[in-house]
Amino acid sequence: MSDSSEKPRFDRISLIGIGLIGSSIARMIKREGLAGHVAVSARSQESLDTSLELGFADSVTLDQEEAVRDADLVIICSPISTYNSVIEAIAPGLKKGAIVSDVGSVKQAVMRDLEPHIPDGVHLVPAHPVSGTEHSGPEAGFAELFEDRWCILTPPPGTDEKSVEAVAGFWRTAGSNVEIMEPNHHDLVMAMTSHLPHLISYTIVGTASDLEQSLRNEVVKFSAGGFRDFTRIAASDPTMWRDVFLNNREAVLEMLQRFSEDLTALQRAIRWGESDTLFDLFTRTREIRRKVIDAKQA
Amino acid sequence: MSDSSEKPRFDRISLIGIGLIGSSIARMIKREGLAGHVAVSARSQESLDTSLELGFADSVTLDQEEAVRDADLVIICSPISTYNSVIEAIAPGLKKGAIVSDVGSVKQAVMRDLEPHIPDGVHLVPAHPVSGTEHSGPEAGFAELFEDRWCILTPPPGTDEKSVEAVAGFWRTAGSNVEIMEPNHHDLVMAMTSHLPHLISYTIVGTASDLEQSLRNEVVKFSAGGFRDFTRIAASDPTMWRDVFLNNREAVLEMLQRFSEDLTALQRAIRWGESDTLFDLFTRTREIRRKVIDAKQA
Repeated sequence: MSDSSEKPRFDRISLIGIGLIGSSIARMIKREGLAGHVAVSARSQESLDTSLELGFADSVTLDQEEAVRDADLVIICSPISTYNSVIEAIAPGLKKGAIVSDVGSVKQAVMRDLEPHIPDGVHLVPAHPVSGTEHSGPEAGFAELFEDRWCILTPPPGTDEKSVEAVAGFWRTAGSNVEIMEPNHHDLVMAMTSHLPHLISYTIVGTASDLEQSLRNEVVKFSAGGFRDFTRIAASDPTMWRDVFLNNREAVLEMLQRFSEDLTALQRAIRWGESDTLFDLFTRTREIRRKVIDAKQA
Repeated sequence: MSDSSEKPRFDRISLIGIGLIGSSIARMIKREGLAGHVAVSARSQESLDTSLELGFADSVTLDQEEAVRDADLVIICSPISTYNSVIEAIAPGLKKGAIVSDVGSVKQAVMRDLEPHIPDGVHLVPAHPVSGTEHSGPEAGFAELFEDRWCILTPPPGTDEKSVEAVAGFWRTAGSNVEIMEPNHHDLVMAMTSHLPHLISYTIVGTASDLEQSLRNEVVKFSAGGFRDFTRIAASDPTMWRDVFLNNREAVLEMLQRFSEDLTALQRAIRWGESDTLFDLFTRTREIRRKVIDAKQA
């Protein structure tokens, strides 16, 4: 590995998809001068127009193959359900020595979809910047989104070292802490730290939205008591999260099953007034918070 | 009702319990000059010493009856499980015309515990300031805790109007928006907006703490993906929350049952790859977030 302070430089970077993450990356590339040219492709002309207006794209096109031509680094920033069609479209346009990366929140499915289509001489270095907001679209991005956040790389065994280091350097320049992981381990950790919390938030906000009208209005009014935090998480991009759950099914169902068992046990403790059970759990969870604070993640 | 800008003034206010909420109230009373004398009682001498040192108590005593003697306003700020013993201890010391209030997060149980012991000529005006942090103890309080938050009053039918208005004015001076509600309705609204979110947070953090050691460390490390928000909520005071669940059992179990059904339906949708079900829910929950923002609760 080269020095971690070394800033990589690409002649041409292509971004496929220009939502919250893609547009944040584009802004960061411009701020840091990481590329001579940023080519952007998106599904809608509107997003492309916005990208030009906001000044973080040097060229835009609806044609994905055209977008990746001559690119040194291609980053797929579209929902995971599009990966199959994206890689089929761009594969013929990839030049020898190009790096293909992505920003998807699950990594086994990404390997499954992308790896078989990567041409000889092209390097696949999947990445997952663990950052985001509840906002979507090219206007929602900002260059600082990745600062002090993790970016997890899951390069397949035998990946070209220099390509891995180039992507790592790219993300370090964005301000992220880079970690290398195996895809299945990544998916398990994220199932617990990110996917299950989102699933639960979506559920409780859905439960509230099914309440009788009068009660529902008051839930919104008095949401500051805890519910509010869940509404923020449950406002995240629907397409992205649908794809996450469908593509990390096994790990999410495993963690969800554990959660459900624990919730049922707690329900029983409340019903039967088992005050020690409640107190012990509530004391134990404080410890985890302390560890999160110690790890400077709070 | 008198003018909402009118600031009440009490010769003597007694606070029973001086944790996060009690000490925030004491600081607010001092800042606003709401009382000639603030008398504090607590279970531990240490808390009393701290109260004197931090300057928000004029007198301190371990004797609850002594603390309330000659008080115009008594606010019970101890956990709900102590209410029975507190009201038995203070009832003989309450002067005619005194107001007894509290800050408990459930209100039917408070009526059950307090009302039978309130002497003739003493006015019971239960209150619930919907605010707090994950920190506990007299050092954790701050005078601004109640600003722009709700404070819900649940006076029994026929309560002396002037006493209700005095307590309402007290909380408006603290910066809160005051709402009058029936105890059972309060408990139902809070079960959804506050109690269920806390229960779920405690559960998921507990589930994480049961993970295999290596995975657990990584959950802490990568907690910024969503899990972190739950650890904050799940770090709330264990005694207070145990008492909440034991004393709002029916409403919490009702909301929990609805949540569990919805979670099971979502689990099924993930298992069988029902992408439309997921997408529809995730779109619907965004609406609720928009309403929370519109209601200026975000």
